[in-house]
Amino acid sequence: MSHITLDPNLPGIVGLFAYRPDTGKVLGELVETLLRGPNSLSRGERELIGSVVSQANDCRFCAEAHGAFAAAQLDGGQDIVTLTRQDPLNPPLSEKMRALLRIALAVREGGKSVTDDLVAAARKADATELEIHDTVLIASMFSLFTRYVDGLATDSPDAPEWYAGVAQQLVQSGYPALAGAR
Amino acid sequence: MSHITLDPNLPGIVGLFAYRPDTGKVLGELVETLLRGPNSLSRGERELIGSVVSQANDCRFCAEAHGAFAAAQLDGGQDIVTLTRQDPLNPPLSEKMRALLRIALAVREGGKSVTDDLVAAARKADATELEIHDTVLIASMFSLFTRYVDGLATDSPDAPEWYAGVAQQLVQSGYPALAGAR
Repeated sequence: MSHITLDPNLPGIVGLFAYRPDTGKVLGELVETLLRGPNSLSRGERELIGSVVSQANDCRFCAEAHGAFAAAQLDGGQDIVTLTRQDPLNPPLSEKMRALLRIALAVREGGKSVTDDLVAAARKADATELEIHDTVLIASMFSLFTRYVDGLATDSPDAPEWYAGVAQQLVQSGYPALAGAR
Repeated sequence: MSHITLDPNLPGIVGLFAYRPDTGKVLGELVETLLRGPNSLSRGERELIGSVVSQANDCRFCAEAHGAFAAAQLDGGQDIVTLTRQDPLNPPLSEKMRALLRIALAVREGGKSVTDDLVAAARKADATELEIHDTVLIASMFSLFTRYVDGLATDSPDAPEWYAGVAQQLVQSGYPALAGAR
C-alpha cells in the first residue's frame, strides 16, 4: 500500500504525476527532453539506459516500464532488452553503448564513481561529450525516479501487457501526453 | 578537472545548466517549484533537507550551496544549519522536521528504505501527506543533482563567501534567474 493516498487506477509514477500535477508537468518535460528530444543516441538506447539503472536500483515499475519503452523502439526489440538486463556490464551492444552503460551504472552508485578511465573508454569508443553528459544526466534522473516511485511505495502492475500497452501510447504521443491523459 | 568541457567560471550545477540550456531550464523550474513555490514547509526548511541529503551523498558543491541557501532563509541562520549537518538524525528542530529529515535520508539510500514506521512517525508529528510527498521528492531530486554535479566532476569553489553571495542572489531572484544569469 502506498505511503500517501494515490488513485489506485494510476500505478507508479503516473499516480504521482496526478497527485501533484505541477511537479508532474515539469518532470514530464524533463523526461521528454532527455529521452525523446533530438539526440545522437536513439530513443531506444536512452530508454535502455533508464531501464538498466532502474533494475539496478530494484525499482520494478521503472525497470519494466522503460524496458518496454526500449523494446518498442530498438531494432533488437525485447530480446536485446532482456539480454542487456541479464548482463548490463557486458551487453550485446556497440562498444559505445557498453561504455555508456558502464558510466550510467557508476552514476547510479554515486557521482564520484564515474572515473577518468570510464570516461576515457567512452571517448575511445567515439562517444561525444554530449553523449557522456546525457548519459550521466539520464542515470541521475533515474536515481530520482526510482526513489520517488519506491519512496512512496507506489503500486506496480504484474502483467507485462500493461507495460507494453503504455509503451504503445508513449511511442505515439510522448511523456507529457502520457502523464496528463492517465 | 571536469569530465566534459565546461565554462571554468561557472562551477557546479551552474556550468551544467549553461552546457545544456534546455535541460537546465527544466531542472531550474523543478527546483524552483519544489524549494521556493507555495508550501507549508518554509523555503529554509526545504533547502535544509537538500543540504543534508547532499552532504550524506558527499557532494560538496550541493551541500555548501544549499546549506548557504538554508542559512539565508532560516530563523536560526548558519548556526541551525551547522548543528543540523553535524547530527542530521537528531537535529535541534521541530519533531516534524526531524521525522521528515529521517525520511529524506532513507530516500537517499533508496526508495525501499522508507519504512511504514518512518512515515507513521512523520504523521504522528503532524506532517501532512503533501509534506511527506514533497520530502520524498526533494530528497529524490537531490539524488539527481548530486550525481549530475559529481558524475561530471564539476568544480566547487572553496570560499564560503562564494556560496553566501549566490545565496543572496537566489533569495532575491529565484533559481531560473540564477541559472540563466550566470
